[in-house]
Amino acid sequence: MQPNTTTPDAQSVAIDLGDRSYRIEIGAGLLGEPGSYAGLPSTATALIVTNTTVAPLYAQALQRVLSPLYGRVLCLELPDGESYKTWDSLNLIFDALLSNGCDRKTVLYALGGGVVGDMTGFAAASYMRGVPFVQVPTTLLAQVDSSVGGKTAINHPLGKNMIGAFYQPLRVVCDLDTLKSLPPRELSAGLAEVIKYGPIADMAFLDWIEEHMDALRACDPQAMAHAVKRSCEIKAHVVGLDERESGLRAVLNFGHTFGHAIEAGMGYGQWLHGEAVGCGMVMAARLSQALGLVDAAFVARLKALVERAGLPTLAPVLDAQRNSARYLDLMRVDKKAEAGAIKFVLIDGPGRAVVRAAPDAMVVRVIEESCAG
Amino acid sequence: MQPNTTTPDAQSVAIDLGDRSYRIEIGAGLLGEPGSYAGLPSTATALIVTNTTVAPLYAQALQRVLSPLYGRVLCLELPDGESYKTWDSLNLIFDALLSNGCDRKTVLYALGGGVVGDMTGFAAASYMRGVPFVQVPTTLLAQVDSSVGGKTAINHPLGKNMIGAFYQPLRVVCDLDTLKSLPPRELSAGLAEVIKYGPIADMAFLDWIEEHMDALRACDPQAMAHAVKRSCEIKAHVVGLDERESGLRAVLNFGHTFGHAIEAGMGYGQWLHGEAVGCGMVMAARLSQALGLVDAAFVARLKALVERAGLPTLAPVLDAQRNSARYLDLMRVDKKAEAGAIKFVLIDGPGRAVVRAAPDAMVVRVIEESCAG
Repeated sequence: MQPNTTTPDAQSVAIDLGDRSYRIEIGAGLLGEPGSYAGLPSTATALIVTNTTVAPLYAQALQRVLSPLYGRVLCLELPDGESYKTWDSLNLIFDALLSNGCDRKTVLYALGGGVVGDMTGFAAASYMRGVPFVQVPTTLLAQVDSSVGGKTAINHPLGKNMIGAFYQPLRVVCDLDTLKSLPPRELSAGLAEVIKYGPIADMAFLDWIEEHMDALRACDPQAMAHAVKRSCEIKAHVVGLDERESGLRAVLNFGHTFGHAIEAGMGYGQWLHGEAVGCGMVMAARLSQALGLVDAAFVARLKALVERAGLPTLAPVLDAQRNSARYLDLMRVDKKAEAGAIKFVLIDGPGRAVVRAAPDAMVVRVIEESCAG
Repeated sequence: MQPNTTTPDAQSVAIDLGDRSYRIEIGAGLLGEPGSYAGLPSTATALIVTNTTVAPLYAQALQRVLSPLYGRVLCLELPDGESYKTWDSLNLIFDALLSNGCDRKTVLYALGGGVVGDMTGFAAASYMRGVPFVQVPTTLLAQVDSSVGGKTAINHPLGKNMIGAFYQPLRVVCDLDTLKSLPPRELSAGLAEVIKYGPIADMAFLDWIEEHMDALRACDPQAMAHAVKRSCEIKAHVVGLDERESGLRAVLNFGHTFGHAIEAGMGYGQWLHGEAVGCGMVMAARLSQALGLVDAAFVARLKALVERAGLPTLAPVLDAQRNSARYLDLMRVDKKAEAGAIKFVLIDGPGRAVVRAAPDAMVVRVIEESCAG
């Protein structure tokens, strides 16, 4: 896959999944544009699900642009943060739907980051066994990764994203202007998922990210437009080949096996998901190197880029007594694990990912090295 | 559709849903027969989900026949009853799966009635975004209705089956011997769903049920084999045409709109689901008559048959002050409702069902008449 030329104008990426196909609209100011929602079903009720941080910024604008399409546009604010990605929050959505008499034609709008998108998507998949929904991601991480591809879920105390569904949205509306309001830490977290697409699929895109890292951190519109579009193109391509993750799609989880262990081990919300993925990618690259799949220069290059994105590369100590064992325990509940064997997404030469197991002793060495800096 | 000839030997009904197709095996003694599970995936772990009533009767036999197929066969007992069809019970399944390190290849077996089947199916749909599952229904209601067709759900305090998924099992194993251990009240409840298939699809089957009602209540093996097989054939036909209930499939809900109001209004578990459906069918027939779709003789015939099945036909008073309004309120949260308008499954001439609305005043008269006897 080759990078395309960029323009700051609105662009569209197609996700090709038969009768579940949809478009990702990407551009500045799209959230408040009626055209972004053209062709969506116009029914009695829409429910915007958002959080207490995002609502004051964008809920009114979304409610305004949607009101001509629906008899009523309701809005529900959830508490903000990964630690609230739970059944209790999900049930607030069901409570709102049922207490307002929402029927099977009600359209849910997920307005916010990955947590809001994952929970709203799972609510849409499950309410009356399925109602339509639209993603309006307002974080970089959600725009380049979590809002695209139909993975929805909530966390369980024993594992991240363990309860959920594959359920595709009707549309994804990525308004690049919303990224300007992101705290720098959130922007950096999103850049981890952008960087991810290079090593697994497109080294020319990695070159481009290296060249434009300063512009991306400054939220330059032209650079951001290209980063979001190219990320979505790669994700759309992979999801189109393997919607339900029977194989290939797992490569999108590069950095996530170590990353999920960090998130769960530190307590959800301590490390942002993107921060854990950034550090996890460096750990997965080290493991790839230990297996002889990439060289030290590749690991150093990735580590330097993750650091330039403003992300941590020193892995946290999860347990003072038995740190590596704790990492291994947490990784064994990863969804890719089979019969207790942890499966890692590794880089099999720059630009190509592979899913495979690794000897525990080798993984332990990588953990020790990564926690020591 | 015409009734087929019956034999007490094992028979098979196919559900044709493309790559989600599966077979319903029907016969005496199938639960403990290795052949019933032939061709199912053989993986590291199976989890039998059952309840405290069914487990002492059949869990050991199922565990024994499955043990050659899996590295380990775990068993989880849930509390018994519709009032436990909740998130809390569902979460016991997730807890068991995660605390035992169950992976994406784990196969769930639902051993029990409709509540166990609906909850286990939804757990299978949601655990790690989907693991395989098998239905082993041990009640008549589950064998002829709830285990077939892929509707899974839990209840919400504001409505029955409001949270769930369309998710098909790999197989359904109906062991007719398990029906012999059913309390008479449960057997009668299951007969409500058998009777249902006559008015909506096959009046010759209704004739047959009338002739064999005494044999069915005595759990005669040959009569029961035909009742289960013919019910599954009709359900398989309807589900094959409309898996996700975009239209036609709703006819299977004959009696369920009034029935759900009775169940919810009385408190889940007071009336068995089948009892509420039996009474609800008579109410729906009365509404069909009020709309001029069937005559009084048809209503009287259906009412007499429901009574012969041992089911109530006197509708309960849900609210001493505002009974009809309470019924209407409860029916407005039915999944078939659209923009607050209740949709009823009505009989449009014997053997044919239609989904349509009715004037509130007419519905109120039917409720008043049905509560007065």
